[in-house]
Amino acid sequence: MAEPGRATDDAQNAAHYFGPSYVRKISPYIAGKPIAEVAREFGLDEARIVKLASNENPLGMPASARSAITAAMDELGRYPDSNGFELKAKLSAKYDVPAEWLTLGNGSNDILELAAHALVRPGESIVYAEYSFAVYALATQEVGARAIEVKARDYGHDLDAMAAAIAPDTRLVFIANPNNPTGTFIPAAEIEAFLAKVPSNVVVVLDEAYNEYLDADQQYESVAWVRKYPNLMVSRTFSKAYGLAGLRVGYGVAQPQLTDLLNRVRQPFNVNSLAQAAAVAALGDAGFLARSATLNREGKAQLVAAFDRLGLQHVKSSGNFVMVRVGTDDGAGARVNLALLKQGVIVRPVANYGLPQWLRVTIGLSEENAAFIAALEQALQ
Amino acid sequence: MAEPGRATDDAQNAAHYFGPSYVRKISPYIAGKPIAEVAREFGLDEARIVKLASNENPLGMPASARSAITAAMDELGRYPDSNGFELKAKLSAKYDVPAEWLTLGNGSNDILELAAHALVRPGESIVYAEYSFAVYALATQEVGARAIEVKARDYGHDLDAMAAAIAPDTRLVFIANPNNPTGTFIPAAEIEAFLAKVPSNVVVVLDEAYNEYLDADQQYESVAWVRKYPNLMVSRTFSKAYGLAGLRVGYGVAQPQLTDLLNRVRQPFNVNSLAQAAAVAALGDAGFLARSATLNREGKAQLVAAFDRLGLQHVKSSGNFVMVRVGTDDGAGARVNLALLKQGVIVRPVANYGLPQWLRVTIGLSEENAAFIAALEQALQ
Repeated sequence: MAEPGRATDDAQNAAHYFGPSYVRKISPYIAGKPIAEVAREFGLDEARIVKLASNENPLGMPASARSAITAAMDELGRYPDSNGFELKAKLSAKYDVPAEWLTLGNGSNDILELAAHALVRPGESIVYAEYSFAVYALATQEVGARAIEVKARDYGHDLDAMAAAIAPDTRLVFIANPNNPTGTFIPAAEIEAFLAKVPSNVVVVLDEAYNEYLDADQQYESVAWVRKYPNLMVSRTFSKAYGLAGLRVGYGVAQPQLTDLLNRVRQPFNVNSLAQAAAVAALGDAGFLARSATLNREGKAQLVAAFDRLGLQHVKSSGNFVMVRVGTDDGAGARVNLALLKQGVIVRPVANYGLPQWLRVTIGLSEENAAFIAALEQALQ
Repeated sequence: MAEPGRATDDAQNAAHYFGPSYVRKISPYIAGKPIAEVAREFGLDEARIVKLASNENPLGMPASARSAITAAMDELGRYPDSNGFELKAKLSAKYDVPAEWLTLGNGSNDILELAAHALVRPGESIVYAEYSFAVYALATQEVGARAIEVKARDYGHDLDAMAAAIAPDTRLVFIANPNNPTGTFIPAAEIEAFLAKVPSNVVVVLDEAYNEYLDADQQYESVAWVRKYPNLMVSRTFSKAYGLAGLRVGYGVAQPQLTDLLNRVRQPFNVNSLAQAAAVAALGDAGFLARSATLNREGKAQLVAAFDRLGLQHVKSSGNFVMVRVGTDDGAGARVNLALLKQGVIVRPVANYGLPQWLRVTIGLSEENAAFIAALEQALQ
């Protein structure tokens, strides 16, 4: 056997040989710090740690999904259904579209990357907004595309500027509504006006990962736009309001020729069997969804009241998280984050989004929110 | 709301606008026919159908994995561990390599595609063998690469011809050992000689999805080659001998700079929480693995004896399946397959691999093998 040390040295020398430069330049996605890791690092009791870092549903997985998983366990030696027959049937009924309009993904993250892989060649361009979801930039880098990042307006999408930024080589536009990590919302009329302006050969992916948290007066029918625009795909996820983040299931809705393209680059068994079974159950669990939305509304009010009391600027959020400005110097986010971690509270710094004075806090259970607020007050002193 | 019919017509006209031509040309992967579908199509009782089509473990998931899943269910509202800490720790110990040498995948299918995405630009080339796993061709098409398909020798890899076929623009070579769908095996010495010939800037992915089924005298230490060659990645899966096909987990072992590249294009939460938990359990379940291998050896003997008795040519298999020639005309595979389906036996036609006279049969439980053999005799009459 060769000495590992020696082989590694050879390898270091050879490193520049592998892969296109646009892949070597990618900075990998930064996930929320795991509870176990924070416990180890700061010598804390895992059970007392509050994690409000990854926009997860504080209610966890619905009981209906747990039952469905238990029922599906006998079949795990078999490959998943490659075409997701049952889940697609439920989604078809929900949106009144044929199964041929649906793409299932290993989370909606998969849908976003499938769109980039199916549509964009190295050197072509992808348009997205400043301060929008990190995966848009990653997907752009992965396919060697040119990023056209459009300056935000009030921490949200500036759709007029985005429409104007579309170049002759633009193949794809990512829009997040609500946006993560800022929580901003784009009213339906603005999206409609935008879609009417986008050239018909440019695909728009409208990422609605947080759609289920919208207030009644914000809600809109994006699938009606899908019927009208062959170049539109709406993406949704079971990771947020449906409480299935650990299982990985999301989906895209688009007309057949766009759907067909994504399915050509989709891994045949991208969505695992338990994710499919749990999603079928969760989709029918209107009670859980309603409880999640109510809890979120109350928790948001709780956080916003505390931020106002503490005189902290925050962005009006339409998601299950709030972005708050914890200082006016560019070390503020990291400093307050560390002070929170020492108290066993995990939130998300957003310096990597160009927002070093801010933190993103997921809305948790009432007592989790209270623990965060108390720790924040301490941290700010 | 726009009429769906009209929107679809517009869409058809616009279809040629979306995506690179190399994506539009992909023929999607053909999965094994699901039991429910065969039952519907042929008016059969689901419970009596025998599925030997997808090289799944006939023992299903190990009980150890089931317990691990049950224990992990409380955490499904949380995202999976993006870095797979615990599973990597177990794999590190098993192979005596650092965690930085491991890439986790949503099945080893994911590892194969990550390699293509991380290493190959449109127009560059990928080398693989005729009659080798369909995903090599798919991954090649997905990234717009040129396929260099090297003629098989006795239904297996001709490594001399493959080494000679490497072009100046070749970035990646896929080798399957054992090979699917033919079952052929390459002795260690031949692989070693091949690796010594491959230019150091060309990455070799050695796909060992069926490794755990090798006889004692076939076994070899591929990780020793990984220590020696910075351009080698070995890929393995939990979908076959470990019985976890429905959960999706596989992994790659390579030196850090190659591993690092794959992790840059990996989706951050590509392996779901239950898959990680189940894989940790299954990896420690030596008893299950041994039972699976024994059952496979016995089942293989059962099938081979029947094929010999029936005078049917078959390829010596080192996997958990056997490829058998069911006729000497190019309609034979489809004809016999249909006759088997009518009797409720699902196997895999391999005409799409250029083998229209052959069928691939997964080795099942003794009674499943017997049912297949009886149905085959009937079908051949």
